[in-house]
Amino acid sequence: MSDDDPLALASGGSCPLPFREYPHVLLAHGGGGSLTSQLIETLFLAELKNPALEVLHDGALLDVNGARLAFSTDSYVVRPLFFPGGDIGSLAVHGTVNDLAMCGARPVALSSAFLLEEGFPMEDLRRIVRSMRDAAAAVGVPVVTGDTKVVDRGKGDGVFVNTAGIGLVADGIDVSPRRARPGDAILVSGSIAEHGIAVMSVREGLEFETTLTSDSAPLWSLVERLLSACGTGVHVLRDPTRGGVASALNEIAAQAKVGIRIDERAIPVREEVRGACEILGFDPLYVANEGKCLAFVDRKEAGAALAALRSDPLGSGAAIIGEVVDEHPGRVHLRSLSGGMRIVDMLSGEQLPRIC
Amino acid sequence: MSDDDPLALASGGSCPLPFREYPHVLLAHGGGGSLTSQLIETLFLAELKNPALEVLHDGALLDVNGARLAFSTDSYVVRPLFFPGGDIGSLAVHGTVNDLAMCGARPVALSSAFLLEEGFPMEDLRRIVRSMRDAAAAVGVPVVTGDTKVVDRGKGDGVFVNTAGIGLVADGIDVSPRRARPGDAILVSGSIAEHGIAVMSVREGLEFETTLTSDSAPLWSLVERLLSACGTGVHVLRDPTRGGVASALNEIAAQAKVGIRIDERAIPVREEVRGACEILGFDPLYVANEGKCLAFVDRKEAGAALAALRSDPLGSGAAIIGEVVDEHPGRVHLRSLSGGMRIVDMLSGEQLPRIC
Repeated sequence: MSDDDPLALASGGSCPLPFREYPHVLLAHGGGGSLTSQLIETLFLAELKNPALEVLHDGALLDVNGARLAFSTDSYVVRPLFFPGGDIGSLAVHGTVNDLAMCGARPVALSSAFLLEEGFPMEDLRRIVRSMRDAAAAVGVPVVTGDTKVVDRGKGDGVFVNTAGIGLVADGIDVSPRRARPGDAILVSGSIAEHGIAVMSVREGLEFETTLTSDSAPLWSLVERLLSACGTGVHVLRDPTRGGVASALNEIAAQAKVGIRIDERAIPVREEVRGACEILGFDPLYVANEGKCLAFVDRKEAGAALAALRSDPLGSGAAIIGEVVDEHPGRVHLRSLSGGMRIVDMLSGEQLPRIC
Repeated sequence: MSDDDPLALASGGSCPLPFREYPHVLLAHGGGGSLTSQLIETLFLAELKNPALEVLHDGALLDVNGARLAFSTDSYVVRPLFFPGGDIGSLAVHGTVNDLAMCGARPVALSSAFLLEEGFPMEDLRRIVRSMRDAAAAVGVPVVTGDTKVVDRGKGDGVFVNTAGIGLVADGIDVSPRRARPGDAILVSGSIAEHGIAVMSVREGLEFETTLTSDSAPLWSLVERLLSACGTGVHVLRDPTRGGVASALNEIAAQAKVGIRIDERAIPVREEVRGACEILGFDPLYVANEGKCLAFVDRKEAGAALAALRSDPLGSGAAIIGEVVDEHPGRVHLRSLSGGMRIVDMLSGEQLPRIC
């Protein structure tokens, strides 16, 4: 991002751009921050208006012949295609499995659509499809339907992948961003910012003493444990991908019209990730995760929720990081390491383009 | 397509390339012909192997908590984005609605994922989203979930759209390519080759006396009438998109291991479309349709099926064009206008790149 980019103030700044219309699409419209929200609200939601879409969940909830279904889609444009801890194939499975899990849904089936650029090496494609297969097998969810399109050289970027997924929500589960309520405890399932930093460090050619690895992982088994332990005491689930924990919490605060307070000291960040963030100039709160979730649970269930998360290998680093409050609805406040309070805004620009 | 392109023999030639592995992706791998089939069989199917995927239907059939669901996805990369009779937004709705309809499923919900290139005009995006909205409203199926990604300038081509869809199959319906059986009558719901020719004539800057318009349309209401009239007498449905009627029939012949005979005189082609095909050097049998379907029905139901199709405005030009036979399993034979018989092969190259 160049210094004269008007969006470069981004990362954690408390000064989002005014919500005006841009005449052209910017990279930041895909960054998962305030410009993405603006695009969704003023264009997609405004035009496609319907109750299921308006919930702005990671997926839609549908009642089809008595079955409570979750339905979600994501396209993947990550660069590089292969990164420490994963690749675009496994990421495309984990991302959609996680969106379904965040609806409280057991993943049932995936679709995959490949958009290939003429000239893309067949061997790389096979490697990606195998990775997709292994990731899907690990979750026990089949890829049941697909599509392949090819665009001329120079009109794509190797390969883009889209997956959509269908999940099934069990009786007695009710997970929705609108269920956040004052008094809820907020948990994170482990240390944050690992996906974004792993991808950026490869992209920037940075070398660290230890290899930074993406946390890309499927979260359904973790979520299943949490739901078994706390049932309807689980109010909200969200995987903080593009835009990171800060943007996810801002979205939930806005949707549920509640205030959120988090404690920086409680948020797990691995030492080498914190170091890389300092070198790269990123705030870990804004960096993408692909194998972590935020959970808002009834405060009476906080202990049980923490134990349930920690009982899963993917949740061994889980922590309670904050709470939902009556004050400052729509806003996220952070008690910083030094003890002061500051507002945590949504990411207003494009911190990490093409991170997923 | 240049003359020295080894794939240029394409269009209807009886000489498909040997099934060897290509080291790189070719445009023809996305053309809907034999190279697309090869890629699907040797890579996607071979790696992702599962029973639902192996049916090679336009969508997958799933049993979820007693509900018979159809699930389908398609990406759209059509150029130009706006063409006579439609645009990438309406096409992305019609294409996925039709894939569900070809499974005998009433469309229930759609997802939409936009893959935008930095710099794409917001006004064009709004026009596309509105067109998507209108097309979805006309079918009565909501877009319930979505995703937006942005890639840097020069790494995309304005906009690509992916839609996935969920449909519901009623009891007593059993539509599958494997149900084609000798004696079945083969019907087409109207005149063919209109989408491909409309798009190509704009792309090539050709002008004809009349404007050639895409047939892009949602086929569920038509299919619903057919299923109401003939029930399980409807064995196979297929919308002949990329690769046209010839490729669709070849796929079905191969999957059901039956022979197919069609009569060129019976296949409806509008005069101006036939003229444009001659000028452009295309065989209408290989040109994409986006609002037509092929139906294989029990021969006893042929009359009822024809009447049902013709009772719908989109099926007013329906015709019986051939039959399924015991002989030459896996092959499609055509009685030509001149009365001779010839083999109709699958499209072996890339006739019309980026037609949908």
